[in-house]
Amino acid sequence: MGLPDDAKIISVDDHVIEHANVWLDRMPAKFKDEAPRIERLPDGNDAWIFEGAASGNFALNAVAGKHPREFGMDPRSYDDMRDGCHNIKSRLADMDIEGVHAQMCFPNMGGFAGSTFWKSKDPELALECVKAYNDFILDEWCAFDPGRQIPLVMVPFWDVEASVKEIERTAAKGAKSVTFLEAPHKLGLPSFHTDHWDPIFKAAEEADLPLSAHFGSGGVPLGTAPDGDMFITIALFGMNSMMAMVDLLVSPVFHKFPNLKFVLAEGGTGWMPYLLERTDYSWERHRYWCNINAEQRPSELFKDHIFGCFVSDQVGIDQRHQIGVEQILFESDYPHSDCNWPHTRKLLAEQLADVPEDEARLIVEGNARRIFNFPA
Amino acid sequence: MGLPDDAKIISVDDHVIEHANVWLDRMPAKFKDEAPRIERLPDGNDAWIFEGAASGNFALNAVAGKHPREFGMDPRSYDDMRDGCHNIKSRLADMDIEGVHAQMCFPNMGGFAGSTFWKSKDPELALECVKAYNDFILDEWCAFDPGRQIPLVMVPFWDVEASVKEIERTAAKGAKSVTFLEAPHKLGLPSFHTDHWDPIFKAAEEADLPLSAHFGSGGVPLGTAPDGDMFITIALFGMNSMMAMVDLLVSPVFHKFPNLKFVLAEGGTGWMPYLLERTDYSWERHRYWCNINAEQRPSELFKDHIFGCFVSDQVGIDQRHQIGVEQILFESDYPHSDCNWPHTRKLLAEQLADVPEDEARLIVEGNARRIFNFPA
Repeated sequence: MGLPDDAKIISVDDHVIEHANVWLDRMPAKFKDEAPRIERLPDGNDAWIFEGAASGNFALNAVAGKHPREFGMDPRSYDDMRDGCHNIKSRLADMDIEGVHAQMCFPNMGGFAGSTFWKSKDPELALECVKAYNDFILDEWCAFDPGRQIPLVMVPFWDVEASVKEIERTAAKGAKSVTFLEAPHKLGLPSFHTDHWDPIFKAAEEADLPLSAHFGSGGVPLGTAPDGDMFITIALFGMNSMMAMVDLLVSPVFHKFPNLKFVLAEGGTGWMPYLLERTDYSWERHRYWCNINAEQRPSELFKDHIFGCFVSDQVGIDQRHQIGVEQILFESDYPHSDCNWPHTRKLLAEQLADVPEDEARLIVEGNARRIFNFPA
Repeated sequence: MGLPDDAKIISVDDHVIEHANVWLDRMPAKFKDEAPRIERLPDGNDAWIFEGAASGNFALNAVAGKHPREFGMDPRSYDDMRDGCHNIKSRLADMDIEGVHAQMCFPNMGGFAGSTFWKSKDPELALECVKAYNDFILDEWCAFDPGRQIPLVMVPFWDVEASVKEIERTAAKGAKSVTFLEAPHKLGLPSFHTDHWDPIFKAAEEADLPLSAHFGSGGVPLGTAPDGDMFITIALFGMNSMMAMVDLLVSPVFHKFPNLKFVLAEGGTGWMPYLLERTDYSWERHRYWCNINAEQRPSELFKDHIFGCFVSDQVGIDQRHQIGVEQILFESDYPHSDCNWPHTRKLLAEQLADVPEDEARLIVEGNARRIFNFPA
């Protein structure tokens, strides 16, 4: 029972805080002046400068190692975060400390799905920014120790044709997953209920790259009242993944692409049994008059297509058989404020105490290796 | 084990389809012409006429006894629904058929929380409509067989002072619960994070009337993409209750009113263990910098304040100890499309097959009697 000592924990949702030279080192000569760059502000904080706008809130995005009493939303500087946030050598050392063997990192400045560049006024510049990030993650960050970093790339999703090319280009270089939108309609783009994204889904399926949809990748997370505390949004993060799951299961996507996978990052899993039961119950009653597939139960479609990720989720672990042990993945969320660094492995072991070893192995390692085609 | 044969099932979320004379029979003389009234349209459907507008979609609101193949969103007429929808004698007969002993009904034409009258241009007319409904539910619908109907009244929530008076007036006449908004901010009204509602909460607490917040009572339910099928909204109904739960637990409401109860109707319960764990986890990490109560864990506040209701929810029943057996209530949802009439008791018994008798009694009867002060 429990987490075997020799299990190599793989976390499928961590975050790289891009260092200052990620784009400066890689952008074509004509865009040298437009490349995203770091500037230190008069108040001592660092900010990314891109197309005249400054963004630099690393705060909740780089708190590993801090006590919750120090958490906040204030912008910070690189000096005020662990080196492991942006330095791959230090990152691997931090992973050793928390007991995580390998991980997959989402972009920070670039946005969960590359959406920072979607807002660019210059499509060519935006595409070069995407390519530069992907080359950084493939050639620098993950290449440093390929057995310990799963390469997750972004696509210029605002241009379907260019996205297909970028999938093909990065897959050839070793990419293992594509970070994608959980709710494109929230950005005013065509929904999963259209054919718009089919070429991207087809390319991802053919390259065997699961789509990793981080909660919040389709616009702002949900809160309640305008004067309700930000805490409410944090507690309700999982609702974004709930909506994405039902939206996808009801859409034609998986019927058209039977080998396509969506990994819902940071949404938790403890709600999945409830929502699958509820969705099946609704399907039994409403499939006749609703314009949905009436042949296949949503919970059947869920299998092999949708995967849930958790940082800390005893309820999900206890219900692993209702979810499907093979549908559950672990995430550390380093260096974000959900992470338990440096106690990651210890706390995970506590949550897995009553789980048979073979199932624990799948959850912490085996599922990630299978889904992301990342052999030991 | 299982549902005892002598347990008297109490459903805490059903619906009365108001008959044509509910308001005509009761409105003051000066408003005789303005009282909501039914008119038969040229297409054979019935519509409520109120302040020049017609509303008459009974469809998914009155499908008890129909096969799901007949479900739809088309408007219907009174001729096309079971008599039990609007006739109390027939209703009790239908309850006998489904094996439900007592029930609590929400308004239909009036809106879950009386919101139909909130839109009125004439505050005096709106108040009289509310009072007429309450007199109907107290003096006619529930008085017919008081041991089998729990009186649920509405308040003119757009007028706090009048709401307090209506709580006092109806409590004196035997009201057992007030239907209230789950998310007043969605209607553009002050949120639970303000002091605005305090007099209403105080009056409800003093009269020992739990507030019954039906999902969707704070504006439209949540969907995903505009072109996503209505089915998505149906499957995601529970998210409204999730938001209400976290919103209330984070608000000052229960700290100010330690005996106030919120019953979240039709939201299910299977998600509660996940969301309580998630909310506590977030509270552990973010209570220092967020502007929330840092003394009491949200899951502790949940106890005795928030109650979940289910039609069919095996996941919730299986997790009843994580939720709290005393926090769970059953609902039949007659005559809406979630209901299992005439098989209500049979299907409930199947879901309770592995539950000890004493716990099953609480879930189907005891909790409702205690919470709504509705003794046998």
